Amino acid sequence: MTAPGFPAAPPLDVAAMAAARRRWASRAEPPGALGGLEDLAVHLAGVTGRCPPPVPVSPAVAVFAGDHGVVTDGASAWPSAVTAAMVETMSAGGAAICVLAGGIGAPVTVVDVGVASPLEHLANVRHERVRPGTASIARGPAMTVEEAAAAVDVGGRIAGELVDAGADCLIGGDMGIGNTTAAAALVGAVCDRAAEDVTGSGAGVPTLGQGHKQQLVAAALRRAEGWADPLDLLALLGGLEIAALAGFYVTAAGRRTPFVVDGAIACAALCVADLLSPGAAGHAVAGHLSAEPAAGIALEHLGLRPLLDLDLRLGEGTGACLAFPLVKAAAAALGQMAELPGEGSAA
Amino acid sequence: MTAPGFPAAPPLDVAAMAAARRRWASRAEPPGALGGLEDLAVHLAGVTGRCPPPVPVSPAVAVFAGDHGVVTDGASAWPSAVTAAMVETMSAGGAAICVLAGGIGAPVTVVDVGVASPLEHLANVRHERVRPGTASIARGPAMTVEEAAAAVDVGGRIAGELVDAGADCLIGGDMGIGNTTAAAALVGAVCDRAAEDVTGSGAGVPTLGQGHKQQLVAAALRRAEGWADPLDLLALLGGLEIAALAGFYVTAAGRRTPFVVDGAIACAALCVADLLSPGAAGHAVAGHLSAEPAAGIALEHLGLRPLLDLDLRLGEGTGACLAFPLVKAAAAALGQMAELPGEGSAA
Repeated sequence: MTAPGFPAAPPLDVAAMAAARRRWASRAEPPGALGGLEDLAVHLAGVTGRCPPPVPVSPAVAVFAGDHGVVTDGASAWPSAVTAAMVETMSAGGAAICVLAGGIGAPVTVVDVGVASPLEHLANVRHERVRPGTASIARGPAMTVEEAAAAVDVGGRIAGELVDAGADCLIGGDMGIGNTTAAAALVGAVCDRAAEDVTGSGAGVPTLGQGHKQQLVAAALRRAEGWADPLDLLALLGGLEIAALAGFYVTAAGRRTPFVVDGAIACAALCVADLLSPGAAGHAVAGHLSAEPAAGIALEHLGLRPLLDLDLRLGEGTGACLAFPLVKAAAAALGQMAELPGEGSAA
Repeated sequence: MTAPGFPAAPPLDVAAMAAARRRWASRAEPPGALGGLEDLAVHLAGVTGRCPPPVPVSPAVAVFAGDHGVVTDGASAWPSAVTAAMVETMSAGGAAICVLAGGIGAPVTVVDVGVASPLEHLANVRHERVRPGTASIARGPAMTVEEAAAAVDVGGRIAGELVDAGADCLIGGDMGIGNTTAAAALVGAVCDRAAEDVTGSGAGVPTLGQGHKQQLVAAALRRAEGWADPLDLLALLGGLEIAALAGFYVTAAGRRTPFVVDGAIACAALCVADLLSPGAAGHAVAGHLSAEPAAGIALEHLGLRPLLDLDLRLGEGTGACLAFPLVKAAAAALGQMAELPGEGSAA
């Protein structure tokens, strides 16, 4: 089932994957000795349709920012104003994502797709605001279906622009106080899990307690019962930045460009992307296992094995940036390692 | 207890570590949101005595190669000649370690500390051969105590030279057919574990079966019962490359230079290094959890948490190279992230 306006993702190139497996078998190492790195290179061959897969040299990061009405209901330890403050920190290069993206040579595009506070004064932010934050998902829909579609479109457009400009690996990030509540609700709805399974402490336990946050997620999940269409689901439970990330992933998969997925927010978006464009998640590289429980549930649902497990729970795309060197190394190893030396036949 | 000729490792700098923790608490992120990356940066502050710790920009790899007499008893699926063939592949730049070290900008020094076959024709190999391979540890000592000390000295000298030449992070690797048998025996002896716990399939199950390899390790462990001195232990069970790696780590710790430890062979060497120079292992960054069981047992014994878990079992220093970008990222994040924005006080 494909959502209107979204084609299914292209299939992974099984011939390139088989060629990658054959190529590994003749490299100068015992069979399978590079473990998960070998699987990763085979996957990259499937995504790009090339064996050996090209070594990504131009990664690009896009961070989507949006606010969440559910914060007014006590979903977070932090006020919504922090979203705008962190976007400003990002635009000044001081956020964690700026440092870690710099470390992998990736430019960062910061996109206001739905922040509540004014940000027009920030020159190096993409102003693509669909609406100034969502309504509270504990009490009604987050946004209209049209707004959800518009936010998805923003993410898709930006992914397309980055690929057109030469990016060969995409990393999406998020910034939005309250967005672990929305992500938990989305993952709960898609993976059919209860609020207590998917709700974590996010950026810190809210003043009213963890049980209160769980109740907000439970209320949102009750309202979404019987959902059928992924755009409806985004409208019911989404964040604007989550919708944009979903569009970002759909386009990355469609363009056969490897993309590295970050933590809980990104994983929720990937669940939606895979509903919008079936097969999209099969193109994803899972960067890490976030400490936020929704992330692991989403990855398991999608059949993805994360590369890192470092108890990260920051978002912004940080964990995906940390995983990127492994992507590069996997492609480089398969492409550049010599064949097994002549003396090297097993006894 | 310190072995003769080896001072205890310098203590970690607790003041720098406390300063690093305070610095994290004021960075632009929720407390602890960068999880294991924060712990890593605190550790680097302790090793280097600086807060923020310097971002390593000149990593250096040394691969120590040696042969193992126990191969003649059927310890490996591969003949000893493969050691020399792989050293040649390394000297030609085609081995996995060459590709992965290249990816992090690290030069590779390949050191023959005990290969059995002639290698004098290879110009870009350091010729430091102490003896042409060990004797079989299943039937007698691997080498004399003097030879063990000489091999330790080779590793220490090379670490010192690399630091003197400007290396700011050291990675040691190994090449030696049969060396998972020696590493298993060393880890079994140091951690007081049975042969069946520490023996893995290494580079492939030997022709005579996994049970046969376990029996070789068990025979070696019986011969080493009652060992007391780490140099004696190396002489009984060692490999020449393992002894050299131990010396490499002792010197790296003594020079307060961060070093990233690789798989089972490296972990066995680190166990010995920590006996030679108590506290040396406290300076180590555990790069990854090898699929070889001795590695996890050694890391647990030393109280180290590995950064990666990718089912690698190649050695050569490959897993340590893959983990190096995390070391760099941890130091960069602590040093370069902005302070929490003013609006960012938790509600």
